[in-house]
Amino acid sequence: MGETIQSVERAAAILRLLASGPRQLGVAELARALGLPKGTLHGILRTLVRVGFVEQDPATGKYRLGATLLHLGSSYLDVNELRTRAINWADALAGRSRESAWIGTLHEGHVLVIHHVFRPDDSMQTLQVGTYLPVHASALGKVLLAHDPYGEAPGPLHRHTSATITDAERLEAELELVRARGWAAEMEELTEGEVAIAAPIKDSRGIVVGAIGIRGALERLAPEGGPRMEFVSYVRDAARAITRDLRR
Amino acid sequence: MGETIQSVERAAAILRLLASGPRQLGVAELARALGLPKGTLHGILRTLVRVGFVEQDPATGKYRLGATLLHLGSSYLDVNELRTRAINWADALAGRSRESAWIGTLHEGHVLVIHHVFRPDDSMQTLQVGTYLPVHASALGKVLLAHDPYGEAPGPLHRHTSATITDAERLEAELELVRARGWAAEMEELTEGEVAIAAPIKDSRGIVVGAIGIRGALERLAPEGGPRMEFVSYVRDAARAITRDLRR
Repeated sequence: MGETIQSVERAAAILRLLASGPRQLGVAELARALGLPKGTLHGILRTLVRVGFVEQDPATGKYRLGATLLHLGSSYLDVNELRTRAINWADALAGRSRESAWIGTLHEGHVLVIHHVFRPDDSMQTLQVGTYLPVHASALGKVLLAHDPYGEAPGPLHRHTSATITDAERLEAELELVRARGWAAEMEELTEGEVAIAAPIKDSRGIVVGAIGIRGALERLAPEGGPRMEFVSYVRDAARAITRDLRR
Repeated sequence: MGETIQSVERAAAILRLLASGPRQLGVAELARALGLPKGTLHGILRTLVRVGFVEQDPATGKYRLGATLLHLGSSYLDVNELRTRAINWADALAGRSRESAWIGTLHEGHVLVIHHVFRPDDSMQTLQVGTYLPVHASALGKVLLAHDPYGEAPGPLHRHTSATITDAERLEAELELVRARGWAAEMEELTEGEVAIAAPIKDSRGIVVGAIGIRGALERLAPEGGPRMEFVSYVRDAARAITRDLRR
């Protein structure tokens, strides 16, 4: 049994490594990164290729993630109850605010984006579902951190802009404010010129299981320094509506 | 080594099973479906939970897909060369046609949607990236089937509407037509009132690696019976542009 578990763990480690960057990796690189003999890796890689989780580039012989994972990821969304319940409210929030709406959950120290509604206009936007946002530099992340029942430390506070909070004490004070007023703001802390607002979604036990928010240009969402309270109320209305739905 | 491979294959089989329907599954159901003893399954499931590929519902004890898969699926898209090269052309195609644009590849007998650009209007649309379309009932699928170098049989020809091609001989004649004219049409064969048009994308070796197309209402795309040639030319232009890019 121990043996069995180990090979599955190693397979998972290979997939994570392949997902950690845009590059394809060769067996030697994988072996070095995971501290495993090449022979062991070959057996697992062959299996991962056979089940479609990994693809081998015919030209270089290097490995990359496989198409089956895209389908599994999309299937995950179908069974995610929070997303299923929240999807209509997120549409409504994007419609009311005329900004893009986002739903995220805490996952391995990041905000995992599980839903994203485009800003309702003709501009070209790239869907961010499945991507990670930094917890300390995003409104969604601040909400999730502020209410994290496990109180996980947010990890290194990387700088994204000159406004990113990179000091642990300042971040703690900010999270205190988020808890006190029930919503979070992100003022150009992740991207220059962009502002985001988020509020917590609670399950039937009152535990924060996600956050919903909007993101848009500084001149629309916060033309006078702070976020416009009209937008804050749209976000909090949506969060409360989803929370109510999850209690049913 | 054989042992190692087997447990990874079983882990993959569990994930596929969990992805095959919207229901959560208990150990007994998984054991029955996979023909494995519960004890063997427990070890693999525990490992899959630990690496985040599977989640256990605290209320029911049943299993569902985990959030890590969403992130891996999104990472797959980042390394997918076809999608990376095609993304701007798909945007342009949606803009020109004012319809939703789609890119798909052949995967395990289905069309795997790897990119989807919404119709440029304010209507609420659900992103279909990662979902499967039936090969015989979609324009993308017909293009991919018609040029499949492995000549895979399309599997059972399930009926989706009264216009779906469910006869193998009729499908073969349709694929012959697709090859002859270089594009495929789908006339309400998947969804009543919807029409789609698709054309092949080739790699530097001339092998069809994907298809690009548009989908929209019958009254816009084919108001007089057949698809409007103006739309066909938009789709073929986009397919040719991507093919050119992949040759570089």
